[in-house]
Amino acid sequence: MALDGRIEQAVVAALALSKGADAPPRLQAALDHAVFPGGARIRPTILLSVATACGDDRPGLADASAAALELIHCASLVHDDLPCFDDADTRRGKASVHRAFGEPLAVLAGDSLIVLAFEVLAQAAGDHPRRAVDLMRILAQRTGMPGGICAGQGWESEAVIDLAAYHRAKTGALFIAATQMGAVAAGQDAEPWEELGARIGSAFQVADDLKDALLTPEEMGKPAGQDAAHQRPSAVAEMGVAGAVSHLKDILGGAIASIPSCPGEAKLAAMVRAYAEKMTPVHLSPVRG
Amino acid sequence: MALDGRIEQAVVAALALSKGADAPPRLQAALDHAVFPGGARIRPTILLSVATACGDDRPGLADASAAALELIHCASLVHDDLPCFDDADTRRGKASVHRAFGEPLAVLAGDSLIVLAFEVLAQAAGDHPRRAVDLMRILAQRTGMPGGICAGQGWESEAVIDLAAYHRAKTGALFIAATQMGAVAAGQDAEPWEELGARIGSAFQVADDLKDALLTPEEMGKPAGQDAAHQRPSAVAEMGVAGAVSHLKDILGGAIASIPSCPGEAKLAAMVRAYAEKMTPVHLSPVRG
Repeated sequence: MALDGRIEQAVVAALALSKGADAPPRLQAALDHAVFPGGARIRPTILLSVATACGDDRPGLADASAAALELIHCASLVHDDLPCFDDADTRRGKASVHRAFGEPLAVLAGDSLIVLAFEVLAQAAGDHPRRAVDLMRILAQRTGMPGGICAGQGWESEAVIDLAAYHRAKTGALFIAATQMGAVAAGQDAEPWEELGARIGSAFQVADDLKDALLTPEEMGKPAGQDAAHQRPSAVAEMGVAGAVSHLKDILGGAIASIPSCPGEAKLAAMVRAYAEKMTPVHLSPVRG
Repeated sequence: MALDGRIEQAVVAALALSKGADAPPRLQAALDHAVFPGGARIRPTILLSVATACGDDRPGLADASAAALELIHCASLVHDDLPCFDDADTRRGKASVHRAFGEPLAVLAGDSLIVLAFEVLAQAAGDHPRRAVDLMRILAQRTGMPGGICAGQGWESEAVIDLAAYHRAKTGALFIAATQMGAVAAGQDAEPWEELGARIGSAFQVADDLKDALLTPEEMGKPAGQDAAHQRPSAVAEMGVAGAVSHLKDILGGAIASIPSCPGEAKLAAMVRAYAEKMTPVHLSPVRG
């Protein structure tokens, strides 16, 4: 996909802001380890797809938004992997940051990546400071409390979980950030793009639950069966494999229907359809489960 | 001091942004625990003092800046207290956040406070988005990598420490943020205010070294003599007590001399002098050491 190169370039440019002759070298290496090589870069891909569909009149702002969103995602992975959360030894097929660099640098790498996300947007503001401020506000709201991924992760420390709020914040928030930031970077209103992001987020949540239940650790590139092991709520536990697959298809159909009218509407619908195919591959069908 | 009430109000308003019916209640409580009751709120006091000296034409932006800076400081305390760093049981006379709420919520509270700092500034941008962007850029640079407090803390994981870079980032960075954000919130350039912040930061570092060497554990409210016990570099080890006291006076004299020309220059100089008195009280004089 043509967006891939654009995203990697934006993420590399963002990481360059964190480098300096005066910086502690191991923390610098930990940041690179956390961000490269990337995973699927799904959130920035959605963001740039929406920006493109909306005309992408300020590609520099869209690129910075894509990088910022990916940095927040990477930060969340580094912190979620910590011993006090998932205690994951591996991530994206290599050692997790705390395994490679120790816990102190993993905490600091996550912190630094969160800060860097906002710095990237501030640096890219240029002649459009108002758009940059809007982008930073959306990113903050979908990252922190009360409705961002921090809130989502926080629900796992509650005795009683509000499941809807948990999923909306833990998985949905950054997908909503993706669609809304893509639109705002291109000068459009954020509000009409919330539903698409929320639906894509729900679809990913269900697809993740299916993967966790059905794939091997080798196929995942990280430990499998974690939902069951940690007795975490999941769509598979709730409605079974077949039910979850059918639910996933419903969500994605609604996602396509929710796309606001924009110049690149048809192409964006095609992209969501392509993701839908990827999310429900043959080997995730109920037959194997 | 009249600024105290203003700062508390700004911090309370900032925390309000993190609250919501949908938020996980324990993480919400952990944020309050991390921020209230406050310590000396020194950094926001310096920030508002500089803003006032510069005319303070946008008090809403100055208040948001003060709150944002204090939130970053609180976040750093929460993360620095974690078992993988200082493993501190207490902070500001009560349980540290991880002792009161567990490690997962301490990690998330720190993350959420960092994000909230930028959200507060984004929300306060109003008709001055360019100033808000500048404020967010300064805050990010003094918080993250390569030169912010994350970098400073990161040096502690290096085998060989660049001491100058370590002190500049670990202690100096947020004092530079304080003077520069105060100036920028009031519409002035950031650059002329760097030296004052750096000098105040150095003074605090030397004062801390003196306290560690000279006060009793009861006077400190925490273990004393830690620098010598851990053979840590300190101004006292380097130049003796008398030398360190004299060095402190030089730094503060230079700080006052460095204050850029501004309407409230005299009052600001008086404030720095008052801090200097506080930092070198009678019982810290060489006579006793």
